[in-house]
Formats: sequence, C-alpha cells, structure tokens
Amino acid sequence: MRNLNQDNITQAVIASFAKTPDARLKEIMTSLVQHLHAFARDVKLTEEEWFQGIDFLTRCGHITDDKRQEFILLSDVLGLSMLTVAMNNDKPAGCTEATVFGPFHVEGAPHYELGDDIANGAKGTPCTVRGTVKGIDGQPIPGAVMDVWQSDDDGLYDVQHADLGHAQARGIVTADAEGKYHFRSIVAVPYAIPHDGPVGQMLEATGRHPWRPAHLHFMVKAPGYETLITHVFRDHSDYLDSDAVFGVRQSLVCDWVQQTDGSYLMEYDFVLNPTRTR
Amino acid sequence: MRNLNQDNITQAVIASFAKTPDARLKEIMTSLVQHLHAFARDVKLTEEEWFQGIDFLTRCGHITDDKRQEFILLSDVLGLSMLTVAMNNDKPAGCTEATVFGPFHVEGAPHYELGDDIANGAKGTPCTVRGTVKGIDGQPIPGAVMDVWQSDDDGLYDVQHADLGHAQARGIVTADAEGKYHFRSIVAVPYAIPHDGPVGQMLEATGRHPWRPAHLHFMVKAPGYETLITHVFRDHSDYLDSDAVFGVRQSLVCDWVQQTDGSYLMEYDFVLNPTRTR
Repeated sequence: MRNLNQDNITQAVIASFAKTPDARLKEIMTSLVQHLHAFARDVKLTEEEWFQGIDFLTRCGHITDDKRQEFILLSDVLGLSMLTVAMNNDKPAGCTEATVFGPFHVEGAPHYELGDDIANGAKGTPCTVRGTVKGIDGQPIPGAVMDVWQSDDDGLYDVQHADLGHAQARGIVTADAEGKYHFRSIVAVPYAIPHDGPVGQMLEATGRHPWRPAHLHFMVKAPGYETLITHVFRDHSDYLDSDAVFGVRQSLVCDWVQQTDGSYLMEYDFVLNPTRTR
Repeated sequence: MRNLNQDNITQAVIASFAKTPDARLKEIMTSLVQHLHAFARDVKLTEEEWFQGIDFLTRCGHITDDKRQEFILLSDVLGLSMLTVAMNNDKPAGCTEATVFGPFHVEGAPHYELGDDIANGAKGTPCTVRGTVKGIDGQPIPGAVMDVWQSDDDGLYDVQHADLGHAQARGIVTADAEGKYHFRSIVAVPYAIPHDGPVGQMLEATGRHPWRPAHLHFMVKAPGYETLITHVFRDHSDYLDSDAVFGVRQSLVCDWVQQTDGSYLMEYDFVLNPTRTR
C-alpha cells in the first residue's frame, strides 16, 4: 500500500475496511469512501478548497452546543435530512406524512393537561390547536403522546433566547380516550434558521435565503404505531414554496382560521401507521 | 417545491444553488449534493444512522481545538487528504513527491541556524538530518526555507504534551547559498494518530489500526518554486505498508543510518518544481 494515486487510492481505502466486523458498518463506510472520493475527483478539489472544507466543518463543530446544532442545519439545507426522512417513511396512503426533525427539539419538555396553554409566556397571537389521532382504519388512538414545539412571534424557539431558563411554546400533551387532543399556544410565524454561523455564510455565498414557512412541530407516539415526526404548516405562509430545508408536504399544510376574538384555530388530525415487522 | 421525494429532491436542492454568484462554488455545491445524496440513497441511510452521523461530526467538532484537528484526521483516514494531494501535485518525474499535510503543523515555529538542534529537549535518539534543495535541473536552490516537524520517542508531537509551553522537534531552517541544509534532531518513531476520539472509535469499529510509519514532515518553500509539503519516511519502519493515512510513497523512503557513536544520520535531497503558470 505505497504510491497510492488518484486512480487506485479509493480501492485501497475500501480494502482497509475489509475486516469491519459489522456488515452494515462496512457497507456504509465503503459507500461513503466511494462517494466522498468521487466528489473530490469530480470537482478536482484543490488543497486550498480542501482546507476551506476542514475549516467549515471545524466552525460548524465549534458553534454547536446543547442548544445549537449546526450539523443538523447543514444536513437540512443540503436536503440530506428530507431525503433520509423520505426514504424511511414510505407509509400507506392516508397516513400523515413525515418531515424533517430539525435542530430545535428538546428532550424532557414539560407535560401539560389537555386545554393548557403551552405558550407559557411566549410572545404571539393566541392559537388553539386541536384534532384527533387516528389509525389508518379511522379508529381513534387513545392516549397518544404528542411532543409539540414551535417558534414564537419573533421567529425564535425558546432555546434561542439566551437567558430564558424555562420551556416556552414547547410541551407534551396526551390525547384522551377518544384520541382527541387540544391545547392553547401561539401562532407560529415564518422564521430564518440560525444564519449567524457557517451554514448561514454558505447560504449567503450561494444566494439562498434562510427562511422557513410558519409551522408547528409534532412528534406523536402511541403503542403499536410508528412514531410520527412531522410539522403542520400554515396555509398561505410565505416560503411554502422555497422552504430553506425542503420540508413542505402539501398534505401537512392547513388553514389556521382566525376567530371572532382575533385568536386562531388550527385543526389537524394525525393518522398513524401501525408498527411494521421488518 | 413541495412534496419532494427521494427521486426529485436532489434536483430541487441543486436548483436552490442556481443563483450562486461564484461559478466554482456552484460547481462544488452541485457535485457535493449529488454525491452526498447518492451515498444516502445507495446505503438507504436510516434515520438512526443519520443521527449517528450528526453525533459523530459533533463529537469531531468538540474535540477539535487549536492543538487537535479531528476533521483532518478524519479526512486522512478516509484517504481524502492523500487523494487531494495526489490530484494537485502531479509533478514532472524527478521532483520530490508530496504527501499529506497532517494535523500537527503549527504556524510560527521557531527559526534555527543551520546545525542547531531543533529537538530542543524532545526525548529521542540523536539524529543529524542533511541534504540539498535542488531544482529539477539539478541546480541547487539557495535559501530555501524548510519547516520541519516530527514526533518524539514517545510517538507524540510537542502539541500533544499538555503542559509543554514551547516547541520541540519542530523548527524552521534556511538552506545555505548552495542549497545545503543540516540540523540536529531525534529519530522519529512510528506512532498512533490520536485515537481517543471519534476517529479512533471509527478505526476500532472497522478493525483498522491507527499507526503511521516513522517519518519527518517537511514544508519547503523557495521563490519561483512550488511549495513542497511532504514527509521523509524511515526505511524498514513498521507500518510502511499499512499507513493509517495512506501517505507512503516509495520515493520518500530513505535509510536512516546509525553512526559509530549510536546517533543516526538521515540524508535526503529535495527537488522542487518551478511555479507553474496556470
């Protein structure tokens, strides 16, 4: 393994993984090396560009902490997140579609009772959110656990407010025995993904905007069903057709209806897919 | 741009880069997205594996600081560094070949006079290093500036010793008017690249060792010539045929000869390529 050149190095690196005990890991590393090398060869990457790439990844790593996830942002804006979601969530027609997880989920959000206000002080126009969690047969699923998170009226999630020590516009509610859920929150607005870091610099350098259409995040879990990670988008929101992270699915867009008191109502039913035996 | 699926998302992401002002950046992003998506599609990456990838990159970022560069290590062990060097250093026959830069170069190393001991206290068997810097026509190149760095007898670079506040086995010497250089240092030994981080975990999980054969790093600069970044390897060293970073070139291997007093002598001439006008 001396004198490797651009023609034979890829096979040499692949061969170095020959003794990988885990067959899946071996498959992944082999494919990764092939595609990574093909990219470098395709563009004839210069040493200066290689170093810029190293520096870019380093800066992504250094801005990432327990509240900021630049690598997920990077995956999102490169469409890798949505591609991965699409490949792994091919559900029967009628099921609610999945979309990207995003970087703003927090483990251990507070639990709320049905009807509670999960805004918990977050700034925004009041909005009631309600609907039913059902199976594909139309039968309600009792007791589905719904993890909800969203931005406030400034387009920021609670974790993006530096000095805020508690959850806002984020919480967990449990659907009732008839699969029905309802809670109060605020109207989500379009927002720019964090663009004060390397991913934002990349978007700017490539003439792309960092905006996402207004949406609520949901992660819905129920025994016997596949966990659903998705958004509900607001109809007529800006950026529905140019989502910076490529996450919009028409079936997830719904009208958020203004009420006579000025508040809004968002109604959306979730349809879960039974757990598959693989 | 709604309802993107695994068949059409790649074109949509590429289209998002359509307005990139810099043509080369556009070319790179387009190719990157194609190959990144092709990889994910090829292995049918799962959401769990995607998250493991995010976590891996995050850990690479967090272990990287001004003395530790996990992303360069990653590029090195995946053969991307050597591929990039090979593509960009196709020199005329007779020129000294280039190899990987590695993660241990430090800007601003101390300057030494010819004949000085650059070990500066580093542990190891004394070794004199000498030779000539020449052009491809055989004419000596006066005043070439040679940045040298190497590991000590423990297989560690100075920057890997936590409490060491100064350079050891690292320095800059300037060849004389006849292109000749000589300095004292220590015998380099095979060493394991840092493997207490995510890259080390990857090597272990794939049954690969982290070792490199014994070598000295050189970066040689002279006006009118291409900068040469290379190593000189020690003949008969372990790992010459299984270098963890794929960097060995036979033309860079030379015998380090033991002298009667127990010290060693390494003689190597460097042949630089004139700067090309592109």
